[in-house]
Amino acid sequence: MGEDIYDLIIIGSGPAGITAGIYASRLGMKSIIISKELGGQLTRKSVSIENYPGLGEISGYDLVQKFYNHLKKFNVPLISDAVVKVEEKNGVFEISTEGRKVFFSKTVIVASGADPRPLEVPGEKEFIGKGVSYCAVCDAPFYKDKTVAVAGGGDAGFEAAIALSEWAKKVYILEFNPEVKAEPANQKKAAETGKVEVITNARLKEIKGDQTVELIIYEDRKSGEKNELKLDGVFVEIGNQPATSFLKGLIDFSERDEIKIDPWTCQTKTPGLFAAGDVSNVKEKQIVIACGEGAKAALSAYHYLKRSLGK
Amino acid sequence: MGEDIYDLIIIGSGPAGITAGIYASRLGMKSIIISKELGGQLTRKSVSIENYPGLGEISGYDLVQKFYNHLKKFNVPLISDAVVKVEEKNGVFEISTEGRKVFFSKTVIVASGADPRPLEVPGEKEFIGKGVSYCAVCDAPFYKDKTVAVAGGGDAGFEAAIALSEWAKKVYILEFNPEVKAEPANQKKAAETGKVEVITNARLKEIKGDQTVELIIYEDRKSGEKNELKLDGVFVEIGNQPATSFLKGLIDFSERDEIKIDPWTCQTKTPGLFAAGDVSNVKEKQIVIACGEGAKAALSAYHYLKRSLGK
Repeated sequence: MGEDIYDLIIIGSGPAGITAGIYASRLGMKSIIISKELGGQLTRKSVSIENYPGLGEISGYDLVQKFYNHLKKFNVPLISDAVVKVEEKNGVFEISTEGRKVFFSKTVIVASGADPRPLEVPGEKEFIGKGVSYCAVCDAPFYKDKTVAVAGGGDAGFEAAIALSEWAKKVYILEFNPEVKAEPANQKKAAETGKVEVITNARLKEIKGDQTVELIIYEDRKSGEKNELKLDGVFVEIGNQPATSFLKGLIDFSERDEIKIDPWTCQTKTPGLFAAGDVSNVKEKQIVIACGEGAKAALSAYHYLKRSLGK
Repeated sequence: MGEDIYDLIIIGSGPAGITAGIYASRLGMKSIIISKELGGQLTRKSVSIENYPGLGEISGYDLVQKFYNHLKKFNVPLISDAVVKVEEKNGVFEISTEGRKVFFSKTVIVASGADPRPLEVPGEKEFIGKGVSYCAVCDAPFYKDKTVAVAGGGDAGFEAAIALSEWAKKVYILEFNPEVKAEPANQKKAAETGKVEVITNARLKEIKGDQTVELIIYEDRKSGEKNELKLDGVFVEIGNQPATSFLKGLIDFSERDEIKIDPWTCQTKTPGLFAAGDVSNVKEKQIVIACGEGAKAALSAYHYLKRSLGK
């Protein structure tokens, strides 16, 4: 084939992908990053990030900018496109994009993160953009002095509720389990807003309205009773699903649809194909952990190339 | 026992320890950090750090300050002392220090990093501080217009050589193997100084001098020939050895004397005892990887505590 063959193609430009890019460039690997959205999930982060070591308190947007400015010091072109297929042929990976481009590479790091997991209840799809949202930080200003609910009582749910409380007059958090799982710092902050009310044991059944969302119906899992909440918006924060549909056949999946990796090296079951960050089955989904995994993956790709060159 | 029992004691305040502290505090764990030196190895880093994502280029000292300032936003006292023994009794860890204090904790994260590995050749011990150094960034200014050698051709060796080239007129790098292992970016930078000369296949045999270092003798491993180099200083950069002597009996060691961990959780063989960063057998010793591991370890300690409380 007459095309250029890269040493490494990184799919995704969140914390894992950008860190992999910085490392790859320093390791002298000819690399590109293909990403449909700079920063990935991080840009949609509801509240300030306070646990990326060294930066104190910073917004998701600003952290993405810092990552991107750092990457720009190195020679790793960032290509704005979505990968639709990865195939492996004789040790070379062929990567096809939505923009109908094809790229070739000796190694690949998948750092494509995860998309919000939908509730899959009646009304959800119908009202997307009309009261149903997957991004509190994006849409909170539309709910000034209104009432909203967040589905999901994990950290993401609480962070969404905290962000929403700056605009909305009332924020319900609906948690399926008898207890919320958010870290104590987030629970405390939510309580301090004076606007957040947590409803546990709640199974969200339906989202209803005329033109826009007007109410939700949920079941109290203890009593079996059905309840209505009148409100103007529903924010879905019940976790993420890894973005991996383009990898069929090359990887094994965990029970949560994440890419299974060797935790020491980020290697998948296909030699030369690595995965890092939230798309993988790394146990904890955290920005600084994703960065560490991105660095690991780039170093592993480098060692793999050296080995396969017989060095 | 009448003493306070902490939820978590972190040993070490490098990237892994400080990240663990930030996470532990946010997770509501009553924690302290015990450390003999703020920042650990990072303070002795020879050249600017260019691969901690989001910060561009920064000195080791400044990065430690940023980490420390971040930690100070949280309630995690930093105790300046050296741990001499960790024992486990009925699920509680008892931690004794050089300062003759004893602390009790339900969980422990060992993030004590690594100390420079000595050459173990005649003259080395004798001339420490008189021409033999393990910290280029600390001691480089003493070698203005002088000739020095760095033992070790990995990244640390090249970074030391680059730092030394700002002061010394000539810097030899002695590498034991037929090839140096430093990343290409470091090799390029060293070449650009015009002062660095790499000698491969070199086994350093002896350091000699009168009051201070005057020459070294090394063997060419190919020819078997012994050679002399006249010089004023020797910087030892042949890797690190984990600082773990206080843990006897509680952990298993890798073949490199690192603490063996479960890579998903940073758990050691002793329940409740975790290790993170360069002290562990994580494959790559990198700042951002150590941070990620510190976050993992703190989250694992948190889950362990919740489980052991029957939640």
